[in-house]
Amino acid sequence: MRIGVLGGGQLARMLAEAGLPLGIDFDFLDPKSEICAARYGRHIQAEWDDPSALEMLARCDRITCDFENVPAGVLDALARHSLVRPGATALAAAQDRLTEKELFRDLGLETPEFAAVDSRPDLHAAVERIGLPSVLKTRRMGYDGKGQMVLRDAEDLELAWQKLGGQALILERWVDFDHECSITAVRAADGALRCWPLTRTWHDDGILRLAWAPSRVAGQLQRRAESLITRLAEKLDYVGCLTLELFVGDAFDEPDRDGLERRLIANEFAPRVHNSAHWTIEAAQCSQFENHLRAVCGWPLGETHAVGQALMVNFIGELPPIARWLATSGLHWHDYGKSARPGRKVGHATLVGDNPEQLVTRVAGLRNQLDSRSNQALDSMAADSRGSNSTRC
Amino acid sequence: MRIGVLGGGQLARMLAEAGLPLGIDFDFLDPKSEICAARYGRHIQAEWDDPSALEMLARCDRITCDFENVPAGVLDALARHSLVRPGATALAAAQDRLTEKELFRDLGLETPEFAAVDSRPDLHAAVERIGLPSVLKTRRMGYDGKGQMVLRDAEDLELAWQKLGGQALILERWVDFDHECSITAVRAADGALRCWPLTRTWHDDGILRLAWAPSRVAGQLQRRAESLITRLAEKLDYVGCLTLELFVGDAFDEPDRDGLERRLIANEFAPRVHNSAHWTIEAAQCSQFENHLRAVCGWPLGETHAVGQALMVNFIGELPPIARWLATSGLHWHDYGKSARPGRKVGHATLVGDNPEQLVTRVAGLRNQLDSRSNQALDSMAADSRGSNSTRC
Repeated sequence: MRIGVLGGGQLARMLAEAGLPLGIDFDFLDPKSEICAARYGRHIQAEWDDPSALEMLARCDRITCDFENVPAGVLDALARHSLVRPGATALAAAQDRLTEKELFRDLGLETPEFAAVDSRPDLHAAVERIGLPSVLKTRRMGYDGKGQMVLRDAEDLELAWQKLGGQALILERWVDFDHECSITAVRAADGALRCWPLTRTWHDDGILRLAWAPSRVAGQLQRRAESLITRLAEKLDYVGCLTLELFVGDAFDEPDRDGLERRLIANEFAPRVHNSAHWTIEAAQCSQFENHLRAVCGWPLGETHAVGQALMVNFIGELPPIARWLATSGLHWHDYGKSARPGRKVGHATLVGDNPEQLVTRVAGLRNQLDSRSNQALDSMAADSRGSNSTRC
Repeated sequence: MRIGVLGGGQLARMLAEAGLPLGIDFDFLDPKSEICAARYGRHIQAEWDDPSALEMLARCDRITCDFENVPAGVLDALARHSLVRPGATALAAAQDRLTEKELFRDLGLETPEFAAVDSRPDLHAAVERIGLPSVLKTRRMGYDGKGQMVLRDAEDLELAWQKLGGQALILERWVDFDHECSITAVRAADGALRCWPLTRTWHDDGILRLAWAPSRVAGQLQRRAESLITRLAEKLDYVGCLTLELFVGDAFDEPDRDGLERRLIANEFAPRVHNSAHWTIEAAQCSQFENHLRAVCGWPLGETHAVGQALMVNFIGELPPIARWLATSGLHWHDYGKSARPGRKVGHATLVGDNPEQLVTRVAGLRNQLDSRSNQALDSMAADSRGSNSTRC
């Protein structure tokens, strides 16, 4: 079995780490000259739409992506020669924040209020309708907090327009959430679908810093999140892993007539393996990476239940000293083989334990290795692990 | 960190699978033109003692082995330029079955009776002294049942001599054991030592077929096995993983005055990661592969406790159909990327579960995929998992 991957970053690398023991060979198409997946397969260095590169890639038995912004036309072209999973429709839906939000709305997923913004008058009209604070975002090519600005008062509009104007934009109402979480599912070509437990996430400047799973939330929230991602996956006839990022609203003073205690608001989805589910490598029966490959290859899905509690810490910019971290019980290290650069995801560590309290204890010795934002997130996790009300963070 | 590995087989491959996420790069020295570790690093194809190859390898920060039969002189030469872990002494002790048995005896480890055999008269004298059945083995280069013959009656002597004579041999008394097990330990350069739980093993024609861990044995057996391997590792000032293969004798009718219920007889040791501990990849907190690298690099050791029950099945000769196997709950697949060949270890699968009974249930659907010898071993495991007396196998 040979799989062609569009993109050769750390997600492609971890797909290959899971795939080589399954007997899968990999080709990675990526325009960059250095990609961190390169040592796990063949790097085809070319533009996404380079005809001879696509011809090489099309010889693979299956095609998948580590990057959702591959031009949809490229996937369509590849689909004439090979099985592309997930398909162009799913990627197209995720590539445009407006299409994505409209899809959520059509499927009955609650979203922040939103409006398309293509001109300065559009922006003013949208703010008029939606109100402030709001977030102005590029409809395309945004990730890790790139291509967006928060509008807090009227003065911010002009600045935001100067920075982002001239391309298709979307204005979204700021959501006053209690916390953020993600759900990841894998769907097979025959429609079988499995979800991993909800992951609680903490972002800083739009970049994921910490993820904790299984998050200590009511079973009800898990079931509701599963229902949302199932609707999405089925609508897109999705094959592979996908992640839905959610805002969890404040608790209602009283559960509503459906027994709902919190709003669950769809933020965005990623048609690929996702940073918030890296913990599944060590702490789930089958990881998101292996299950994505199983789905793409048409093999039976692995089980998605957690086998422990996990806390994942992203390393942004540079790696901390490995020996210091490996001294921590239950710690697993993931160096992506990238050079250091501010803002770059260069690795992660996953700490596993039997229960949240053990995680809190184990991570204590690493707190002085973490920045203040991550420490705040840990405080919030510790509060939750004690079963108290979640700390806003 | 760059590690040079002498040998590029599946053990080197799985070391690299564990090591790349730790940020380790690998060079593999192996005379073979095709090695299954090649895709994880640089293959230096040369004889073990090739001067320019050794010069290249000596530039690595650390040197280790996936193969214990590397000439000891090669390790000595490398040790003048780099840190070789484990060192030449440990390999030399394991390379010669006579030295190995003498070492066991000197350390107070019970062994089968043995005698050196260098001539036909030696053989007759040894059989006279030790009795039959016995096993005649080459002192060097034996593995996976190669280079040995069982002598059951006087007629077998001449046949065995014709087959094995002309090289240094050892005669060992046949041990009438109840079952076989292995213990694997990792020792750091500072002397810290950790043991994984005992693994029960089943061999056929000298090749490991099944391994079950943690084996349901008395805590006493675990403690005694740990004491034996600790003595061995400390005597050799060992750094890295090593495995001691043991025969577990029949139960005494009555525990002896030390409270011992079964004899524990040292068979052989391997100065490297070992097939019987492959289950640690999925079912121990830290695998033998990662811990070997941690020890070799001078990093803190990971924890060796089991996080579940595991049953490992070796694939000999060829791989069975992957999709059929992946349909089994808790199954993890390891394709070594080798071509099929009779008697060759081409992969393994590890089935994990919460308890032995669950393993027995999960493996039931695969029984028609296994040969009769493996099915006998499963019967024996099932009997043990019910807590009945172990079935001789």
